[in-house]
Amino acid sequence: MTRIALLGCGRIGQMHADIIAAHPRADLAGVYDTHGPSAQAASNKHGVPVYDSPETAFASDADAVLIATPTATHVDFIKAGVAAGKAVLCEKPIDLDLERARACAQAIKGATQPIMIGFCRRFDPGHRAARKALQDGELGDLHQVTITSRDPGMAPDGYIRTSGGIFRDMTIHDLDLARYMLGEEVTTVKATGSRLVNPTLMEDCGDYDTVSVILTTASGKQAIITNSREAVYGYDQRVELFGSGGMALSDNHRDHAAVVYGKGFTNRAAPLQHFFIERYHAAFVAEIDNFVDACEGKAAPEVTFDDGVKALALAEACFKSIADARTIQISEV
Amino acid sequence: MTRIALLGCGRIGQMHADIIAAHPRADLAGVYDTHGPSAQAASNKHGVPVYDSPETAFASDADAVLIATPTATHVDFIKAGVAAGKAVLCEKPIDLDLERARACAQAIKGATQPIMIGFCRRFDPGHRAARKALQDGELGDLHQVTITSRDPGMAPDGYIRTSGGIFRDMTIHDLDLARYMLGEEVTTVKATGSRLVNPTLMEDCGDYDTVSVILTTASGKQAIITNSREAVYGYDQRVELFGSGGMALSDNHRDHAAVVYGKGFTNRAAPLQHFFIERYHAAFVAEIDNFVDACEGKAAPEVTFDDGVKALALAEACFKSIADARTIQISEV
Amino acid sequence: MTRIALLGCGRIGQMHADIIAAHPRADLAGVYDTHGPSAQAASNKHGVPVYDSPETAFASDADAVLIATPTATHVDFIKAGVAAGKAVLCEKPIDLDLERARACAQAIKGATQPIMIGFCRRFDPGHRAARKALQDGELGDLHQVTITSRDPGMAPDGYIRTSGGIFRDMTIHDLDLARYMLGEEVTTVKATGSRLVNPTLMEDCGDYDTVSVILTTASGKQAIITNSREAVYGYDQRVELFGSGGMALSDNHRDHAAVVYGKGFTNRAAPLQHFFIERYHAAFVAEIDNFVDACEGKAAPEVTFDDGVKALALAEACFKSIADARTIQISEV
Amino acid sequence: MTRIALLGCGRIGQMHADIIAAHPRADLAGVYDTHGPSAQAASNKHGVPVYDSPETAFASDADAVLIATPTATHVDFIKAGVAAGKAVLCEKPIDLDLERARACAQAIKGATQPIMIGFCRRFDPGHRAARKALQDGELGDLHQVTITSRDPGMAPDGYIRTSGGIFRDMTIHDLDLARYMLGEEVTTVKATGSRLVNPTLMEDCGDYDTVSVILTTASGKQAIITNSREAVYGYDQRVELFGSGGMALSDNHRDHAAVVYGKGFTNRAAPLQHFFIERYHAAFVAEIDNFVDACEGKAAPEVTFDDGVKALALAEACFKSIADARTIQISEV
Repeated sequence: MTRIALLGCGRIGQMHADIIAAHPRADLAGVYDTHGPSAQAASNKHGVPVYDSPETAFASDADAVLIATPTATHVDFIKAGVAAGKAVLCEKPIDLDLERARACAQAIKGATQPIMIGFCRRFDPGHRAARKALQDGELGDLHQVTITSRDPGMAPDGYIRTSGGIFRDMTIHDLDLARYMLGEEVTTVKATGSRLVNPTLMEDCGDYDTVSVILTTASGKQAIITNSREAVYGYDQRVELFGSGGMALSDNHRDHAAVVYGKGFTNRAAPLQHFFIERYHAAFVAEIDNFVDACEGKAAPEVTFDDGVKALALAEACFKSIADARTIQISEV
Repeated sequence: MTRIALLGCGRIGQMHADIIAAHPRADLAGVYDTHGPSAQAASNKHGVPVYDSPETAFASDADAVLIATPTATHVDFIKAGVAAGKAVLCEKPIDLDLERARACAQAIKGATQPIMIGFCRRFDPGHRAARKALQDGELGDLHQVTITSRDPGMAPDGYIRTSGGIFRDMTIHDLDLARYMLGEEVTTVKATGSRLVNPTLMEDCGDYDTVSVILTTASGKQAIITNSREAVYGYDQRVELFGSGGMALSDNHRDHAAVVYGKGFTNRAAPLQHFFIERYHAAFVAEIDNFVDACEGKAAPEVTFDDGVKALALAEACFKSIADARTIQISEV
Repeated sequence: MTRIALLGCGRIGQMHADIIAAHPRADLAGVYDTHGPSAQAASNKHGVPVYDSPETAFASDADAVLIATPTATHVDFIKAGVAAGKAVLCEKPIDLDLERARACAQAIKGATQPIMIGFCRRFDPGHRAARKALQDGELGDLHQVTITSRDPGMAPDGYIRTSGGIFRDMTIHDLDLARYMLGEEVTTVKATGSRLVNPTLMEDCGDYDTVSVILTTASGKQAIITNSREAVYGYDQRVELFGSGGMALSDNHRDHAAVVYGKGFTNRAAPLQHFFIERYHAAFVAEIDNFVDACEGKAAPEVTFDDGVKALALAEACFKSIADARTIQISEV
Repeated sequence: MTRIALLGCGRIGQMHADIIAAHPRADLAGVYDTHGPSAQAASNKHGVPVYDSPETAFASDADAVLIATPTATHVDFIKAGVAAGKAVLCEKPIDLDLERARACAQAIKGATQPIMIGFCRRFDPGHRAARKALQDGELGDLHQVTITSRDPGMAPDGYIRTSGGIFRDMTIHDLDLARYMLGEEVTTVKATGSRLVNPTLMEDCGDYDTVSVILTTASGKQAIITNSREAVYGYDQRVELFGSGGMALSDNHRDHAAVVYGKGFTNRAAPLQHFFIERYHAAFVAEIDNFVDACEGKAAPEVTFDDGVKALALAEACFKSIADARTIQISEV
């Protein structure tokens, strides 16, 4: 059994705790949170100890740490985990600062245990099925990746203000997914940002709530990302792979499969699954499974630390593209 | 060019006139209707003469007659058409009386020109694609045919009272389609009828507005038909072929392909196409095409007079199954 | 916490054990199976004792028993459970013999604890959403219920031979679901059975592998059920409610939501979820939740013992309808 | 009746001729084509005269001219039509040269008859239904327009070489549609072009076969266009309107509505309708209807000459954006 210490018992940490507890080859070793009651609740639910500090967790006999704490702590905890010889699974993003993330990459070079970044979307069964169609040759050569990704509603102001901006906080998932699907490094970035959902807040933060991005690779493959902080009809998550031989479309999920027909309309379906906890549940399960496999030496982590750095660099390039009103070469960031 | 005389310029006759006029190898030769203004309107629209009587039409030099007059006239007009050496395309049903239809079959035996009954659904591109999947072996051996067929609204009282009852008027299309899909004669019939849409009228006519039918063939294939005189969401027309190797489903048509997502719902689609004129337009075009081919000796009519008689016999068996509360052997009717 | 003893650790028992273990207000109290290793595996997985006999389970301090043993044992275990003052959740069917089930009903009359039969489909989120649309008045008055239910493949010969026949084993789920949706007792039954999947075995057992059923209620509502023991494309589970005001359709589930477009085709989707364990997982979770609520006195069981008897009576009527080639009044069975 | 002279009897001209002939308030007045046999075929089909030159057509008593000749002739024919007092419907684009189009605008200023450019997609029932949802307030404020538009296959080399490049030839439709949906002038343009379908030809022409474009308006609305010259699964035409209150998606059309389920897959649908003649047939009919209405003074043309110029300016900006690797202000072109 891989024994995993959990740092951070917020919404996403709790979800990971449940998934670890249900995994046949993993055990939750203990939990930590700066907010005592959250840690205690997780401890009670799973019958595991509460660590009195992150240091205690790193000093424990756990095999691995799962870092689900605020972004600002990620780099330090990753370094501490590596130093303690733990396998590390860290939620995205590595940091809001690209240089800090790169310095961290240097600092942990030579780590003997797996280090993995939590880009859960790579593990979604639908997205994977689309990618498998590509890898199986059903789509021929890949030409265009189109990702639509919209949150069900604007996060609280406080969250937005410290999020690092939409590209580092939200688009970063799509930037990583685009890289994963493209199978080739991105060379140019164009981005557009608008303030349409909450213009006052966005203005205030120098942020955007509605963005579009075009990425290209050296061979001319394109990825198009459209994001919004608020889709009233739910968490809109679609990925399309278009190639010389066909197209695969990973579509949204709904809560159930019943539809209603009435006077003047047909086929009215259920709302989309609320948010990432529901929509990507199967993906989070598969992510933990891959991490456990990696800890057991059976598989490589499907998302590396370097993937985390590269997605962050793309986010940086998006901001720069808007600021300079031009196409950014990835070599510039 | 095949020159076709049209008897009956009501809604369905007008539609046929337009289709004939647009057909590259057919011409409308002239039109007749007991209601003068209807005939005149069709005449004006297509620049063809009005026949002053059906006899004039039969005596004309037209190659063929299309009979779209009230059901009570069908048998006489079919016989007159055959006697005049015309090819005949007659709308369903042949007659409300099975014996009269059978006598007509005897009377026209040996006709040298094609005789065809207007079961348009056999020509629907979707239904055909489902049948093609079956014929191509994609569905293996056929086990169950499921037909859902619901009208968008109850016909006027006067129409209902002289319609011959739902099985002869409405279900007859599905009975024919079931035979077409089964590819094997029906041997037993079970039917159920309810009065739910307009119980007073139905009671008064001894008719039903909501029915379900199960047909079987000698080899055990099953066909299940569900009908309603009124579906508020539109003209519901679905056919499912289930076999040992797969399933094909010919689905409904909508006016356009746009859907709307909003707060609390997704994917709300357009209403179904209103009624048979719209829904089966492509089928009516293909039906005329087959008839013209038959007139030119290039193809056999895809619906024979015998098909018309057999569908009527099945309708008769449905009424009898309800009356006797038992399974009817087709040999009984 | 409601402490539940599990009798029967086969496929469905194991699934229940997992669901109980994950339920916030239920605990697995212990397990029993005539096949020792199965019981031991469940015991190990959940850290609960193995009962050395059913009697030990009934004598234990568990609050409830979940009966997932072979059908022949159900009646005795239900009676023993009730006698021991336990709440009882028993898998369908109650018994293959209608009289025995009715005698059991007499025997357990006055039971003080909830007794529930495991018709899981009532709890399916999609089926429920369809029913909610009906109850919310969106569908007007209900006219027709159409249930398509096909297994992904024929069960092993040995299972089929002791299953009580397709109506008692498989259709019984749909008969119950039809009653649930109709909201009114069934008064007449018509059934058709064919031997198309495995004619030799069916002949040998006097059973059918392909059946269609029409039920009616006193007010004329209709339910149409079509079943097959083998759909190569997967577990086909669809329910349609048609009423004077609209239609609701609870559709199939697929493993993921990706589709592929290629030369000559579009929209090719994933296979249907394999079988009931996968397809009705959410339903089984909701079923246990309702049972726990019932044990806590917060809610009535949504499926009663009487529902189990009535579904069995409908199954009996189906066989009789085929044997007599006629419509069966439910009062006859 | 509005009498329309047709210049150009190629594929699109023939289609227009059929639609005019079937229109209740329009007549085909005569036809012209530099290729005599094409003109003769259209003449024979519709029983109308062949004009021996464009001048003859302009001098005729026709009320209107429909210009479906090669692009290079458009400007001259538009000017000649206006000079002759005819209403004009001209296929897109006005010209490959933006300055020439602008000069033409000056030249025809003060025209008393309607002048309309053939951006047929504005008339598509699905795209219109999406726009109606927006106008009805169902989508709230518009935030993002996403247009996916892919041809079923690369046009012949000769066509490509004289097409003016993908943005002026193909994307121009989407640029116009984006303007139509945005309801607000575009202010910035970003474009990306790749050579993936036929790199040799594209290199040779300085053209692209795979492009993505982001447009923005002054208020921050975004439009995202993705194009490919070749989608093997058919003519892919999708438009999505995303707003603060919901989303509307105008989806693709298929030849029929039958789907197939088999071992390992479900829901396999028909290919998309082949190309614009089939896909946008209803749109072309509605376009002619609007033109006839305009000729009768009942309605304004829904696509103006100025719309044609503005779409061309956007196409120009796309090329410039690629050349300069930056965001182009529309005021620059």
